[in-house]
Amino acid sequence: MEKTAIVPTRESNYPEWYQQVIVAADLAENSPVRGCMVIKPWGYAIWEQIQQQLDCKLKQTDHVNAYFPLLIPLSLLEKEAAHVDGFAKECAVVTHHRLVATAEGNLIPDGKLEEPLVIRPTSETIIGEMFAKWIKSYRDLPLKINQWANIMRWEMRTRIFLRTSEFLWQEGHTAHANKQEAIDETLQILDIYTNLVEDYLAMPVIKGEKPCFERFPGAVNTYCIEAMMQDKKALQAGTSHFLGQNFSQAAKIQFATKDGGLDYAWTTSWGVTTRLIGSLIMVHSDDNGLVLPPKIAPQQVVIIPIYRNEAEQQQVLDYCAKLNERIMNITFANAQVRSYIDKRDLRGGDKAWQWIKKGVPIRIEIGVRDIANGAVYFGRRDLPPQQKQSLPTDDFVSQLAAILDSMQANLLTKAKAFMQANIFNLENLEQFNQFFNEDQLISKGFASCYAIDDPQIEKFIKPLKVTARCIPLEQDASSGICIFTGKATAKKMIFAKAY
Amino acid sequence: MEKTAIVPTRESNYPEWYQQVIVAADLAENSPVRGCMVIKPWGYAIWEQIQQQLDCKLKQTDHVNAYFPLLIPLSLLEKEAAHVDGFAKECAVVTHHRLVATAEGNLIPDGKLEEPLVIRPTSETIIGEMFAKWIKSYRDLPLKINQWANIMRWEMRTRIFLRTSEFLWQEGHTAHANKQEAIDETLQILDIYTNLVEDYLAMPVIKGEKPCFERFPGAVNTYCIEAMMQDKKALQAGTSHFLGQNFSQAAKIQFATKDGGLDYAWTTSWGVTTRLIGSLIMVHSDDNGLVLPPKIAPQQVVIIPIYRNEAEQQQVLDYCAKLNERIMNITFANAQVRSYIDKRDLRGGDKAWQWIKKGVPIRIEIGVRDIANGAVYFGRRDLPPQQKQSLPTDDFVSQLAAILDSMQANLLTKAKAFMQANIFNLENLEQFNQFFNEDQLISKGFASCYAIDDPQIEKFIKPLKVTARCIPLEQDASSGICIFTGKATAKKMIFAKAY
Repeated sequence: MEKTAIVPTRESNYPEWYQQVIVAADLAENSPVRGCMVIKPWGYAIWEQIQQQLDCKLKQTDHVNAYFPLLIPLSLLEKEAAHVDGFAKECAVVTHHRLVATAEGNLIPDGKLEEPLVIRPTSETIIGEMFAKWIKSYRDLPLKINQWANIMRWEMRTRIFLRTSEFLWQEGHTAHANKQEAIDETLQILDIYTNLVEDYLAMPVIKGEKPCFERFPGAVNTYCIEAMMQDKKALQAGTSHFLGQNFSQAAKIQFATKDGGLDYAWTTSWGVTTRLIGSLIMVHSDDNGLVLPPKIAPQQVVIIPIYRNEAEQQQVLDYCAKLNERIMNITFANAQVRSYIDKRDLRGGDKAWQWIKKGVPIRIEIGVRDIANGAVYFGRRDLPPQQKQSLPTDDFVSQLAAILDSMQANLLTKAKAFMQANIFNLENLEQFNQFFNEDQLISKGFASCYAIDDPQIEKFIKPLKVTARCIPLEQDASSGICIFTGKATAKKMIFAKAY
Repeated sequence: MEKTAIVPTRESNYPEWYQQVIVAADLAENSPVRGCMVIKPWGYAIWEQIQQQLDCKLKQTDHVNAYFPLLIPLSLLEKEAAHVDGFAKECAVVTHHRLVATAEGNLIPDGKLEEPLVIRPTSETIIGEMFAKWIKSYRDLPLKINQWANIMRWEMRTRIFLRTSEFLWQEGHTAHANKQEAIDETLQILDIYTNLVEDYLAMPVIKGEKPCFERFPGAVNTYCIEAMMQDKKALQAGTSHFLGQNFSQAAKIQFATKDGGLDYAWTTSWGVTTRLIGSLIMVHSDDNGLVLPPKIAPQQVVIIPIYRNEAEQQQVLDYCAKLNERIMNITFANAQVRSYIDKRDLRGGDKAWQWIKKGVPIRIEIGVRDIANGAVYFGRRDLPPQQKQSLPTDDFVSQLAAILDSMQANLLTKAKAFMQANIFNLENLEQFNQFFNEDQLISKGFASCYAIDDPQIEKFIKPLKVTARCIPLEQDASSGICIFTGKATAKKMIFAKAY
């Protein structure tokens, strides 16, 4: 068996493999604060790439960024009943505003607040309160605001990137003069998320609507994109909520209509989080570590100078600097290629392995022989580590963008084939029970079944530790019988074990 | 007297003028959460410009971004004694991790934490804890990390942007193998801040060191840049701290030295905050509202289409679109000009005034006559609103970058002249008392005096509600007598009433 950089492998222990990929790529780690992670530079650089792409798309569609308070008064949170029910169990609560030392010299909380404040678990309530002040007339609509922020939801069982008490996200909040416009916004955002996740993270997703019992607390409809990890479990990669007039009635977001009436605004909210990094790891990485799609890689090319003495060192470094310049002048995905010379005082082989584990798409090793040959000796992250190739420098430079393009496309194609091969049409409850029951720990894939959108089906799926992921927006024209209730329905639903 | 867009004027009531400029430019407002502001889109867009410039400079100097937890355990905060003393009085404390409903249906905090957590007032302690894990050998140094984050310091008297319980900032934290390298880092950052503030925000500053009694809690030396507002008060625009080995001893950040020993790392920390937006307002704005230096303006040009009927509308909008294209192809300050067509359904004059109050450098009004003349009719924010001019379109396009350049330069020159005219050399305590005592509310400027860096001088200045701003790094070769103690000293210190 081949030696792998990550121990254990995916096959032998997938959850532990996931943790070890994070360690090996130096992406993040647990902190001394229960359930909260530290996002290390390489992990944060991936988040910055995601932010940059998404922020640009949101601005192109006339959304503007703003910033709202971290702390939310209880009285605001309470205004929307379903909403507060959904979040009360996981709110970090601020009760005091200073510390004092006791006679023994211990610090204790002091200065009790009249009203406790919660750290935002999401910001619908505080933003709704501001929208109610800002929106007076139809002329103030639509109002399309986005916020990049940290969020706190107290979690009992945490896993880095996937489920942490604090995480980073963007949350969009918009208000519209009519229902259709708000629904259109909700779906436009779903498309933007799909484009971000498929075109940049190379992760295929199923676009769908959440069944009623999986909606965001307070929403009328929740739309989502669902991805399949390599262990065939599902992960929700983004959500977009049509909130109807629920939050605008709670916060009194009223406006004078064009024809002189008064109406409540129609609102939406939507978000993606640092969880995306967790799914990125789980969709593409292999037993040698992280695999990054070129478009989202913080460094797309790393150049490793190889030399045996000082005379060689100067020659090699000079050559690397020139090569780096040329590479950074190449355009890929509408930006200059991100290339970097790793000059650290370390063995070349050790460096190469570090960059493999960090998922860098192209690593180049340059020694005096390559210089003499006028060649570039390089490895691709999508090929085995030993399988390196040499190209004349001019050829390499002229082909690099195409190589990155094909690596990006291959990752998506491969993940898409994997997902499609692991979605199964199940015809009846017996098949369903068998599919999900055999082993609680191993997932065999997604099940696609006729099912009605009704809370009564939950009792069939909950005991299997399975969740209804979504009702895909794309459905064929056929119809059938709900496998749980026997009722006729035109829609299939996707079920899976999930993160 | 001329009618002004902002009432009151700077002269009649400076603090209220400041608040009204913020309202008129729609930058930010108070929130339902005591002491916390909402940063509205135009205010946040200014922050994004500041972020982008500074982030780029930090990356160019080999700093990397990361993210650390929002919450800090009390036990960590307590490790550095001076540090916890400095922040204990203003910490928001999380004591519970959920909410439950009482029998009456009221929500109350529940799930008491074993150890209270504070919302970060700054992150030296939590980052130090992680550095202690990451740093083992001299090969791991220097470690140069930056974080963009929200910060909470409970304030009793708040003012938007200048002093709020929550604010946004960047905080840099670095560790080095020796003292000199850490000092060099501290001063390099001071230079980066100076460049950001002078070259982009067009605010002249005095670079200096804080006297010992004004240091950051736990620092060995604190360096700062001090700016003068139009009311001649001082505002600290950025700080950079040399922390010596204080925090590394508290957190046990130890490393194996090159020669086989074991040493504590030398650390630094430094930050600028959303306070910069407050100072930007107070340095440049006038009685018609915000004035933005072109380099930092979210929109540098706004085009206002003027038409009387539908036939004109189409013609004018088409022309504006083409003009906008041409303008966005112009390069200014190494980026494309940020230009925008304001198509809202509002009177042209109302739009123009809105953009004046928002501080946009160039506003263009385009009607059919301008199209017929092949001309651009425009106003500059640094000239009176009525004083508009017309230029042939080609001339306008070819001159725009130079116009923006000169506006940028003029703002700095004007602010520099103002600051220099309002720094006074005071020779003795009598002059000092007179200068600061006449009226507690009005500031006459900065006082420059010989003074020793000793806590005993505080008793002379505190009763006057004056603060020692800094010991300027640039000092002439002369020396003199401390006006407070009569001791000989080679250094002058800057004193001022301050924000």
